[in-house]
Amino acid sequence: MSGSYYAVIMAGGGGTRLWPLSRKTRPKQMLRIIEQRSLFQMAVDRLEGLFDPQHILVVTVPDQFQELHEQCPQIPEENFLVEPFPRGTAAVVGLAAVHLARLDAQAVMAVLTADHYIGNQEWFQKLLQVAELVARQDYLVTIGIHPTFAATGYGYIQQGKLQGRYQGVDVFHVVRFKEKPDEFQAQVMLARGDHTWNSGMFIWKVERIRREIRRQMPQLEKALAELETHWGEPSYATVLEKQWEALTPETIDYGIMEGAENVVVIPAGALKWSDVGSWDSLFDVLPADAQGNIVMGGRHFGLDTRQSLVYVGEEHRLIVTIGIRDLVVVDTGDVLLIVRKDEAQKVRQVVEILKENGDEYI
Amino acid sequence: MSGSYYAVIMAGGGGTRLWPLSRKTRPKQMLRIIEQRSLFQMAVDRLEGLFDPQHILVVTVPDQFQELHEQCPQIPEENFLVEPFPRGTAAVVGLAAVHLARLDAQAVMAVLTADHYIGNQEWFQKLLQVAELVARQDYLVTIGIHPTFAATGYGYIQQGKLQGRYQGVDVFHVVRFKEKPDEFQAQVMLARGDHTWNSGMFIWKVERIRREIRRQMPQLEKALAELETHWGEPSYATVLEKQWEALTPETIDYGIMEGAENVVVIPAGALKWSDVGSWDSLFDVLPADAQGNIVMGGRHFGLDTRQSLVYVGEEHRLIVTIGIRDLVVVDTGDVLLIVRKDEAQKVRQVVEILKENGDEYI
Repeated sequence: MSGSYYAVIMAGGGGTRLWPLSRKTRPKQMLRIIEQRSLFQMAVDRLEGLFDPQHILVVTVPDQFQELHEQCPQIPEENFLVEPFPRGTAAVVGLAAVHLARLDAQAVMAVLTADHYIGNQEWFQKLLQVAELVARQDYLVTIGIHPTFAATGYGYIQQGKLQGRYQGVDVFHVVRFKEKPDEFQAQVMLARGDHTWNSGMFIWKVERIRREIRRQMPQLEKALAELETHWGEPSYATVLEKQWEALTPETIDYGIMEGAENVVVIPAGALKWSDVGSWDSLFDVLPADAQGNIVMGGRHFGLDTRQSLVYVGEEHRLIVTIGIRDLVVVDTGDVLLIVRKDEAQKVRQVVEILKENGDEYI
Repeated sequence: MSGSYYAVIMAGGGGTRLWPLSRKTRPKQMLRIIEQRSLFQMAVDRLEGLFDPQHILVVTVPDQFQELHEQCPQIPEENFLVEPFPRGTAAVVGLAAVHLARLDAQAVMAVLTADHYIGNQEWFQKLLQVAELVARQDYLVTIGIHPTFAATGYGYIQQGKLQGRYQGVDVFHVVRFKEKPDEFQAQVMLARGDHTWNSGMFIWKVERIRREIRRQMPQLEKALAELETHWGEPSYATVLEKQWEALTPETIDYGIMEGAENVVVIPAGALKWSDVGSWDSLFDVLPADAQGNIVMGGRHFGLDTRQSLVYVGEEHRLIVTIGIRDLVVVDTGDVLLIVRKDEAQKVRQVVEILKENGDEYI
């Protein structure tokens, strides 16, 4: 079939942003934090109707393949591409592009994240449909998230002139990418109103992104070309390992997007997107009770307890909270974390310090 | 030996004021919360030099006898008086008085608590020595604690004229006892400056208190007289059980002290006393670190954490706190309690509610 549309889910991340629930060996996308579904499962769920399982690729790492496959057994095993080493999102995209080019040289690929939350599935699918139309015009398509505060942890996309309107969705030419800004720059971009956050989702023709890699990332191109010559042969795995071992890690943003032309952005509007990047972000994602509390696991008895999140891994444990406000409590059995909501970002600092000390709790 | 001096430690309480660490079957006095010693052990420790173990009686209940005896094996087993049922402090005092009268009709007894903290041992022993002198003059001697706030949870003792000064310690006649006052009454008593808190510690001749019981508590007197006739006989245990079953519970304060004459009070001054009645009281008792934190058990890593108490029963558990202030965190494995320090009193409410629900965590 020619001109097909594939979803490529990048699921190799090893973040510890929801530590102590997420660990090196149990990254965020695997966690079943929302209605007993993991973020990875939800990333697959939300494609239903638009992509059948045969048209979903998952790029991951050896450690995670087994668990992810068990979480989504409907995706054929051969659709899981396993990188021997993580080499950044540019390599992920390149590997998927090589694979898809063999299936359909005219394919369009939607590069998607495995560990973000999207609340509005219908609108998300609409955006992906529009994105495919625009990608077929040879554009590199990005999805921009409406910024709600002067975040310094995200990349920004500045939009220029309208490229077109499709089924009521506006698409803009991109003026520039701006990687994680400082506080002042973020404030300015927020005030200007013509910047969106880079969602890390991209839609393009397989052939078009391959051309960009050839032009901007010669080392990666060489590795991909080598892979292509061994495609389908017994030597493929060895070649992949050898090439990936030598590859310098790079993100698609730095490696391709900042130097690319004919880039457009689709401002996502009411996508209800969250990167679930820290414990406090769950308040944007999960329903709270009348006191503003989110309770997951355990038995909770709260007296004068408000705007707090309690996660307890052990079902039979009783948690009593009295007189607390804006706290996040996470109990994983071996670790108990208590953090004020507006300091939740500092969990990363703690993880760094524990790492330096060679700690077993990471 | 005639005219001896005995300590009687009341160790039958079943409070849950340090819940979830203290439970019905593991009351406060058994908890090893201070330097790995329990409050009961510390109550015995602080008598060293003044009372040898043969001169220390412990009155307790069947549930607690074994554990208390194991905690203080130096006290002879026959010095543990076990009440078949708890019947209030008046019965405790009566039972001990019957026992001591057989050993020495001229004995003085110091009735002491098992679950309070006293920081100044030397001063405490000095007070007990002075108290003995005054008790031998046929007074009922009480120890008054200098009130530091308008507490409504304690009884108060109003002092009148100076009875005498002994080794630099002032002893006052008691004007009246006032049981737990309301907020306004407490404020007034605090402002007057002539009231102290009733410490629950009493010193008197065995013969004198027995006379008071005879005068004021005929039901208890009858039970004690019955016991005396069976003293040392095989029937004693059965008689004790029968008499105690029928006894109406009463405190020594209501039953005796409020109606007694020739009562004196020794204001305790710098005793560093605490009833350890709630988690926040541990801040008066245990040394805090430079950030004002008290950490017991577990491994604690605090970032921007102040004036907080962390108790974790499990040694290998890691506790991370970020951005917290004035919190008490108590983790006993089956229960996790998080309470703001100034709401620590409300733990009792929670225990009451759990009790009503027939909960297993009490």
